[in-house]
Amino acid sequence: MRTSIATVCLSGTLEEKLHACAAAGFDGVEIFEQDLLVCPLSPEEIRDLAAGLGLSLDLYQPFRDFEGVDGQLLEGNLRRAEAKFALMNRLGIDTMLVCSNVATATIDDDAVAAAQLRRLGELAAGYGIRLAYEALAWGRFVNDFEHAWRIVELADHPNVGTCLDSFHILSRGWDPAGIERIPAAKIFFVQLADAPELSLDVLSWSRHYRVFPGEGAFDLAGFVGHLVRSGYDGPVSLEVFNDVFRQAAVDRTAVDAMRSLTWLSERTSLHLAGRDDAVGAGRMSLATLPGVEEPHAVSFAEVTAGDPEPIRTLLYQLGFTSRGRHRSKQVELMTQNQARVVISTGREPDREAGLSALGLDVADAAAAASRALQLQAVPVPRRSQAGEQVLQAFSAPDGTEIFLCPATAGEPAWAREFGSSAPETAPGTITGIDHVNLSQPWQHFDEAVLFYESTLSLAPRPSEEVPSPMGLVRSQVMRSRSGAVRLALNIAPPVFDGAGDGSGYPQHVAFGCTDIVAVARTAVERGLEFLPIPENYYEDLAARFDLDPALLQTLRELNLLYDRDADGEFLHFYTSTVGNLFFEVVERRPAYEGYGAPNAAVRLASQYRRSRARKAAGSPVR
Amino acid sequence: MRTSIATVCLSGTLEEKLHACAAAGFDGVEIFEQDLLVCPLSPEEIRDLAAGLGLSLDLYQPFRDFEGVDGQLLEGNLRRAEAKFALMNRLGIDTMLVCSNVATATIDDDAVAAAQLRRLGELAAGYGIRLAYEALAWGRFVNDFEHAWRIVELADHPNVGTCLDSFHILSRGWDPAGIERIPAAKIFFVQLADAPELSLDVLSWSRHYRVFPGEGAFDLAGFVGHLVRSGYDGPVSLEVFNDVFRQAAVDRTAVDAMRSLTWLSERTSLHLAGRDDAVGAGRMSLATLPGVEEPHAVSFAEVTAGDPEPIRTLLYQLGFTSRGRHRSKQVELMTQNQARVVISTGREPDREAGLSALGLDVADAAAAASRALQLQAVPVPRRSQAGEQVLQAFSAPDGTEIFLCPATAGEPAWAREFGSSAPETAPGTITGIDHVNLSQPWQHFDEAVLFYESTLSLAPRPSEEVPSPMGLVRSQVMRSRSGAVRLALNIAPPVFDGAGDGSGYPQHVAFGCTDIVAVARTAVERGLEFLPIPENYYEDLAARFDLDPALLQTLRELNLLYDRDADGEFLHFYTSTVGNLFFEVVERRPAYEGYGAPNAAVRLASQYRRSRARKAAGSPVR
Repeated sequence: MRTSIATVCLSGTLEEKLHACAAAGFDGVEIFEQDLLVCPLSPEEIRDLAAGLGLSLDLYQPFRDFEGVDGQLLEGNLRRAEAKFALMNRLGIDTMLVCSNVATATIDDDAVAAAQLRRLGELAAGYGIRLAYEALAWGRFVNDFEHAWRIVELADHPNVGTCLDSFHILSRGWDPAGIERIPAAKIFFVQLADAPELSLDVLSWSRHYRVFPGEGAFDLAGFVGHLVRSGYDGPVSLEVFNDVFRQAAVDRTAVDAMRSLTWLSERTSLHLAGRDDAVGAGRMSLATLPGVEEPHAVSFAEVTAGDPEPIRTLLYQLGFTSRGRHRSKQVELMTQNQARVVISTGREPDREAGLSALGLDVADAAAAASRALQLQAVPVPRRSQAGEQVLQAFSAPDGTEIFLCPATAGEPAWAREFGSSAPETAPGTITGIDHVNLSQPWQHFDEAVLFYESTLSLAPRPSEEVPSPMGLVRSQVMRSRSGAVRLALNIAPPVFDGAGDGSGYPQHVAFGCTDIVAVARTAVERGLEFLPIPENYYEDLAARFDLDPALLQTLRELNLLYDRDADGEFLHFYTSTVGNLFFEVVERRPAYEGYGAPNAAVRLASQYRRSRARKAAGSPVR
Repeated sequence: MRTSIATVCLSGTLEEKLHACAAAGFDGVEIFEQDLLVCPLSPEEIRDLAAGLGLSLDLYQPFRDFEGVDGQLLEGNLRRAEAKFALMNRLGIDTMLVCSNVATATIDDDAVAAAQLRRLGELAAGYGIRLAYEALAWGRFVNDFEHAWRIVELADHPNVGTCLDSFHILSRGWDPAGIERIPAAKIFFVQLADAPELSLDVLSWSRHYRVFPGEGAFDLAGFVGHLVRSGYDGPVSLEVFNDVFRQAAVDRTAVDAMRSLTWLSERTSLHLAGRDDAVGAGRMSLATLPGVEEPHAVSFAEVTAGDPEPIRTLLYQLGFTSRGRHRSKQVELMTQNQARVVISTGREPDREAGLSALGLDVADAAAAASRALQLQAVPVPRRSQAGEQVLQAFSAPDGTEIFLCPATAGEPAWAREFGSSAPETAPGTITGIDHVNLSQPWQHFDEAVLFYESTLSLAPRPSEEVPSPMGLVRSQVMRSRSGAVRLALNIAPPVFDGAGDGSGYPQHVAFGCTDIVAVARTAVERGLEFLPIPENYYEDLAARFDLDPALLQTLRELNLLYDRDADGEFLHFYTSTVGNLFFEVVERRPAYEGYGAPNAAVRLASQYRRSRARKAAGSPVR
């Protein structure tokens, strides 16, 4: 698949955009007119820069409000177009996007529109330029791609073809199967964008909320499947207007964009294979990536802290056993059954405790690592001594390192590198890591969702919004089908001025257990500082659920939270926060599938209070 | 008007919210259930805190999904309600909001809903509690306030009344005149919210985009007018779900909220007076504020800079004359006809140049100052020596100080306090300050619009979005009807990670002139550093407008920008930026009313390039 991207997707200057696109591996770019107008480089210099970077300039866009106009306006439009054709010659671009008229069309007559496009085509031919006419979803008279194609057919000029844009087609609910009825040679260009489901007017939706393929709700593999079957083999280009991408660092956005196309290419390939339909797939050269099964389990979580003692204490209080120090690294392992936490002291004595890595059990670690690197994950170099297991690892967009561990039935090989091979002393009822909560910077949320889905085959669940005293937090769970691996991605709102403490939102690891009351009672004995839960919460629980008074009393006594749905019950508690990290213990009775969403606001409010109080007291712990 | 506000409008803990509401001058608050549940204070402690702060607790909310259910669910709902009634007795709250059923209603029968509400009313009566039944705009069977009122009538119980919420009524387009047909005694509560015009589904619109009265598009003065005519005299309470307010500092938001009610109260009073309809206005006790005419002109702009020399130089290059230093302050005046800039050296030698104050000519400065203070503007203390004119001043939400100057025909009195009373030497064609552009922090944009409208009678124009290399910038012009005072409020997007230089967006003062070519030529002679405009821009101008080649050549040569619309032409240029400030010179030929919006992106891109280049070169100037 020839990949391209419109410069309007990205932040920065035109030169910064071109450099970022080249570095991310795009074949070409579309030059968005506004980016050219504000650029001090001459068209020839832009052409040379792109060529030097190995980028083709695939499209000049957009040319607006051309057809369906009266004669006087038409002459002005032709004059305006000719100036652009001359410019395109200087840039070395041979295709121009012509959007269906939004503002100035007064004549709703396909024959008139076609005749005017034909005149434009004749003019363009003199410059060696092709016109790709596209139906905007909010075009005045033309807003349906099949209608635009009928006008192109009527125009009947070799330099007039059509441009297909997934947003304009799918946002209106037009059936993309119609693409296959358009001759491939007349599809002059293809633009792709995904979008979340929103009940917004289509213009605002398009201008602000487009996302890269795989980050929204459109069936783009099906869309590209129709293109493949049509025989189209030109560029597939991203045109994504997104307020956040416009603000984010250009190099990261370009990589995110390229990842989305690689992933889409593979998905299209799988989609066609699933239909036993490989017609033309060769012509489009769809990507094949090393397949990867979803991870089987969270093998370990790694915590890095300048001072590891508070973390060790919390884990001890939760019933974990130290399994000793690593034979060559400054790390210690603490376990309880399948729940494993590696505590790394690192080299910065003042470093706040935080989650630094996750180990995931996968069937084929080498294939999974190769797949992630082809999706432009950043590899993490792993220093290892002779005789130690080398784990492949890469960084997620939020900075978490993901280690790929060969799945084994018993204790993993890497764990045997730690001092004590003695079994745990009296393991408690914590059985493993239930889920991990990773805070995401707001600029990189869509990227994170696509990253975890494409590299690790985790699927996004419907997102939720949780009120906190500092704003709404959006929570998006990425989950393996088996449910063994669950990552909750939370975007915290930008920290506000004045009243905020600037600390953002900590991450957490939630351990699953079979008897939360036993875990909590042991923790009380060992002096665990629980996150305190207000009495008002328990009174509301009593009002909402017809709870056994003894259970309610236990919940209250142990600072446990409770939820119930049709699948069962959920009991959980939180530890106090150390640095940027806290722990949660959860018990699912028996098939509850959620995360206690109604309780998340209680946690956030309690943490906010403690953070404010500790900040007031001058303590670095929050 | 008894003022109240729902705690959900604000950020922070319940105690922080109550303190902020009291400080802002509210009479009472609604307790949003979630705020109570997450609070460690007991209901009695909350009651005492509010009483100590002089706040009444007006409403407990919301009680959801009660009516239209089957018998078994009804019993559970009554049990749940009774627990809340007991809680409300402890809080000392006598009114509960009951929202029309969204989730669990299965019976679309008014008689059933009424009978169930009547049972709830009987139960509530035992606790001395009144129920205010409200039609949510997205209620399953009840989404119209007149329908909710029919059910209340059918329920026919003294403890069952209705709650009217402006959002739920106006968002659906229901005619609020129907309010007057409801007996005032059965209107148990009123909630107000404004909202911008959005084509979004009503639930998302309501949950994320409500704003305070005067910050949106609803006719709330008309709405409250119907309430007044109905005879209602209970609390008027703000219930505003807004993502940004939830993130903003609680004390500021509370002041913004209170200002909106003060302003609305006055607007309602004027609305009723305009209809010769003062029925009941006395009962509601509507606010009267000192009336204020819009300002006649911008008298001066004040720039503060640790090093004033670069600003002095820029103004000299634009043809300004120094009028000497102030007789008692570290400030200097530079003028050109009616364009006056006060340069203040301040006490911080490293302070970057920035716009610190605006002087506005008003007919009655004392009344204008009094009005602003009643709208909770923060007064600015003015040190003055004997014999000097004392100007009243207050701070705008963006930190700009607004000085109120008695309008005079000739040179203002304050200007005579500067050293030289000699006339300007050869004044150029700059005639005055055309407009001033003030960057706004994104958290306070809605507040700023309401502030400038309510204190200074400037009216908001339709807002525009301008692409910059760091994201979309929203621009909102506030304008006096005469056009003599124009403030362009720009919200810059949050600065992005990595590539951004963190400098934000500078402010600027635009001078109007009658011969921009002359001003620019003088400036060239005097060595002004113009903001450079790319050649590509001029080629596009030539394509878009059929410009006289000589004019085009002049534009290009002098880095002038150009726009044209049905009213005329607009020519302008920008200086380079010093610190956080630059200047613009504009010429309107003759009746052009805009601000060259198509050119704003060119400016932002050019400034971004220079900022990046200078940052790379290590210069503090950008």
